Amino acid sequence: MPADYTELKREACEANLALPRHGLINLTFGNASAIDRARGVFAIKPSGVDYAALKPADMVLIDLEGRPVEPANKLRPSSDTPTHRRLFLAFPEIGGVVHTHSSHATAFAQAGREIPIFGTTHADYFFGDIPVTRKLTDAEIGGGAYEWETGNVIVEHFGRRKKSPLDYPAILVNRHAPFTWGPTVAKAVEVAVAVECIARMALMSLQLDPSLAPIEPALLNKHFKRKHGPGAYYGQP
Amino acid sequence: MPADYTELKREACEANLALPRHGLINLTFGNASAIDRARGVFAIKPSGVDYAALKPADMVLIDLEGRPVEPANKLRPSSDTPTHRRLFLAFPEIGGVVHTHSSHATAFAQAGREIPIFGTTHADYFFGDIPVTRKLTDAEIGGGAYEWETGNVIVEHFGRRKKSPLDYPAILVNRHAPFTWGPTVAKAVEVAVAVECIARMALMSLQLDPSLAPIEPALLNKHFKRKHGPGAYYGQP
Amino acid sequence: MPADYTELKREACEANLALPRHGLINLTFGNASAIDRARGVFAIKPSGVDYAALKPADMVLIDLEGRPVEPANKLRPSSDTPTHRRLFLAFPEIGGVVHTHSSHATAFAQAGREIPIFGTTHADYFFGDIPVTRKLTDAEIGGGAYEWETGNVIVEHFGRRKKSPLDYPAILVNRHAPFTWGPTVAKAVEVAVAVECIARMALMSLQLDPSLAPIEPALLNKHFKRKHGPGAYYGQP
Amino acid sequence: MPADYTELKREACEANLALPRHGLINLTFGNASAIDRARGVFAIKPSGVDYAALKPADMVLIDLEGRPVEPANKLRPSSDTPTHRRLFLAFPEIGGVVHTHSSHATAFAQAGREIPIFGTTHADYFFGDIPVTRKLTDAEIGGGAYEWETGNVIVEHFGRRKKSPLDYPAILVNRHAPFTWGPTVAKAVEVAVAVECIARMALMSLQLDPSLAPIEPALLNKHFKRKHGPGAYYGQP
Repeated sequence: MPADYTELKREACEANLALPRHGLINLTFGNASAIDRARGVFAIKPSGVDYAALKPADMVLIDLEGRPVEPANKLRPSSDTPTHRRLFLAFPEIGGVVHTHSSHATAFAQAGREIPIFGTTHADYFFGDIPVTRKLTDAEIGGGAYEWETGNVIVEHFGRRKKSPLDYPAILVNRHAPFTWGPTVAKAVEVAVAVECIARMALMSLQLDPSLAPIEPALLNKHFKRKHGPGAYYGQP
Repeated sequence: MPADYTELKREACEANLALPRHGLINLTFGNASAIDRARGVFAIKPSGVDYAALKPADMVLIDLEGRPVEPANKLRPSSDTPTHRRLFLAFPEIGGVVHTHSSHATAFAQAGREIPIFGTTHADYFFGDIPVTRKLTDAEIGGGAYEWETGNVIVEHFGRRKKSPLDYPAILVNRHAPFTWGPTVAKAVEVAVAVECIARMALMSLQLDPSLAPIEPALLNKHFKRKHGPGAYYGQP
Repeated sequence: MPADYTELKREACEANLALPRHGLINLTFGNASAIDRARGVFAIKPSGVDYAALKPADMVLIDLEGRPVEPANKLRPSSDTPTHRRLFLAFPEIGGVVHTHSSHATAFAQAGREIPIFGTTHADYFFGDIPVTRKLTDAEIGGGAYEWETGNVIVEHFGRRKKSPLDYPAILVNRHAPFTWGPTVAKAVEVAVAVECIARMALMSLQLDPSLAPIEPALLNKHFKRKHGPGAYYGQP
Repeated sequence: MPADYTELKREACEANLALPRHGLINLTFGNASAIDRARGVFAIKPSGVDYAALKPADMVLIDLEGRPVEPANKLRPSSDTPTHRRLFLAFPEIGGVVHTHSSHATAFAQAGREIPIFGTTHADYFFGDIPVTRKLTDAEIGGGAYEWETGNVIVEHFGRRKKSPLDYPAILVNRHAPFTWGPTVAKAVEVAVAVECIARMALMSLQLDPSLAPIEPALLNKHFKRKHGPGAYYGQP
């Protein structure tokens, strides 16, 4: 009996449709993907298709070697597919990836600057600054695997610092824009909303005090742990 | 005959629903509560529940000792409940408390900066700057009663300066976000809208003149008194 | 036969309702009035009434001596009524007055700064900078006729400079907010929209170049005259 | 048999209606036109008509010598018609022109500053900075052909630098606002959306780093070529 990807496609489609609804999408930029870990297959938005027309059946299935699973589906996957695949391979704990060009977060990415952690809103989602990758080299850009290399600089950032991707579920790709992830793609969408909101408030806090220091470690710990890990007490049990 | 909290829950629910409608809520941050002073019981939003699904029956009743009034209601109250309770205990003249992470006000809170009173819009609501609390100490953050201590630094600010909470119906918790209050929770919602609007205009006025002085005392007096106290003549009698 | 003010009230009500629709109103701030010059009577918004509930019959009729025309109407007129009356008396060429606290224009007013004329959008509506009044003195504020004196500083500005109010159909009251006017109240609403839009763009242009010079006189002349006076050729004949 | 311009008018009308839907229009500023190259006739918005009431039959047909094609149509064309005509004459590869006063792009135009290319969002649409024209001389402004001269400074910019208008499908007219174009008017609308979005992000990136350098040539090349020219692989084949 052939595998049934109906639910996976529905989940990926719904996440893609949530992006413009949350005001995170300019033009057709942005894409979301969800993975079925048991089968090693993820569903991702087709390239350059208008969000208004998107439906679950349009989602493109790709396996972890990068091959299309349903050759009969004639739609090309998002051009950012290799970035998503790189992240799914490197971070086994994640179930979904989201990419947007949301305005405030992208402004930080363009400036090559991390988003400093200035308050509890930020600490509720991230265990520190939202990092920015190094720039890609000319060879990485022009070598024929640009989108895969984009994933590589993300993975490299986490590897070098031995940081857990679920403690820091977002990164800004230098000169480009944010990528977020989570245990599910729905959670990755929520993180994408948080990144944009936090970037907006950080930009304004920096206007008020250009040399503002990050929040105190005790407050960061308290707020992050209120929502994450064994001592969490936020939300319903 | 058991007490009937139907109206209290309706009032609290309506206030919570007004927050996203006024664009004051990012994600699920924010909560509103209304108190029945005769019974010493307040109704507050459950923790981490999506605003879209909120209904009066979901409101959680808490007494002024912090005990749930309806143990059959399985929903946890907002994690910020001890802050609300602290304010209801310290300020007997208030009937409702609202907490948001509205973007511009939170930008000031993150920067640890009061919102200076620059114009008559501000003076119509507040008898001076919108203050910011001191930072919590590590002991206050980590001692097991973080949200109660958040209420304490608010109360401490008013006690030290002998200011009336109804003349200054809002404060920014340092590194965190605004809390507002009023004789009713509906009025506390209106104040939360005013705080965000005033913060936004103050940020722009500061861009135009970083060393802008506050408004003149005569103008502050005139506008505040036009709307508050025995000489008020704004609105309908 | 008694005078029929149905049309005047409808016109004033429509203008008031247009303000929140254009995003110019925060809270209940703002009001619009329309005058019937033949009868020397103007219709204005009642004080502190929610825009959602406003209807033509609520408009309050005031004559140019400041007396209510329909004592049976129990609604108080806007507390800013004396300012409107002052303007109708001083500027016989105007048919309507609008007052808002729109965010960007108010940010300039709070900073006591005129809105410099930086481009053709501005020149299409105003024959130069959008001016700011001097501050009111303590005596003017506290002497019992604050709103009338607010009108006075506006009129004083025009008198001193011998400027025509229709060439400069808006002013910022220092520390307060914008007032606009026009041959009709509908036109005054359009000017209020223009003021906010122009203030927003000016604020951003100033961020890009804090010492930006105003536009060249030839361009100002060209654009203003394209839309105003005998040589106008914009719009339909 | 007389020429049928039904489709051309429909296309031009739809493009005009798309402008307020994308939030690019303030007041009645802005216009779009589409050309029928075979007949040398373009359809453009009538002057000063409210967008709400616009329908295909209102579009005004003008030939490349500037003469009205349907004298029975009593509506005046947009006052910017000579600018559109100048561009259609100089750039034979374009099929549509759009003019807006969108806020962020206009803020750059008012400041006489090009929009620097800071990221991949920008590089997906433009092969470098979005340029700004020189200022018009007093003679060009006052000589009776202001709008035609506006087109001339745009054309002059491209001629001098031997740049292709489809590699740089937008320009800011100094002190005025953006013009965009494309192979179709629908594409010119999309570019107008991109210009505003890119201007907004650039303004914020400049706030974060006032001396931010443009993106690296390899990244610009990669992103522009991903979407344009023979090696493009973005979107569906």
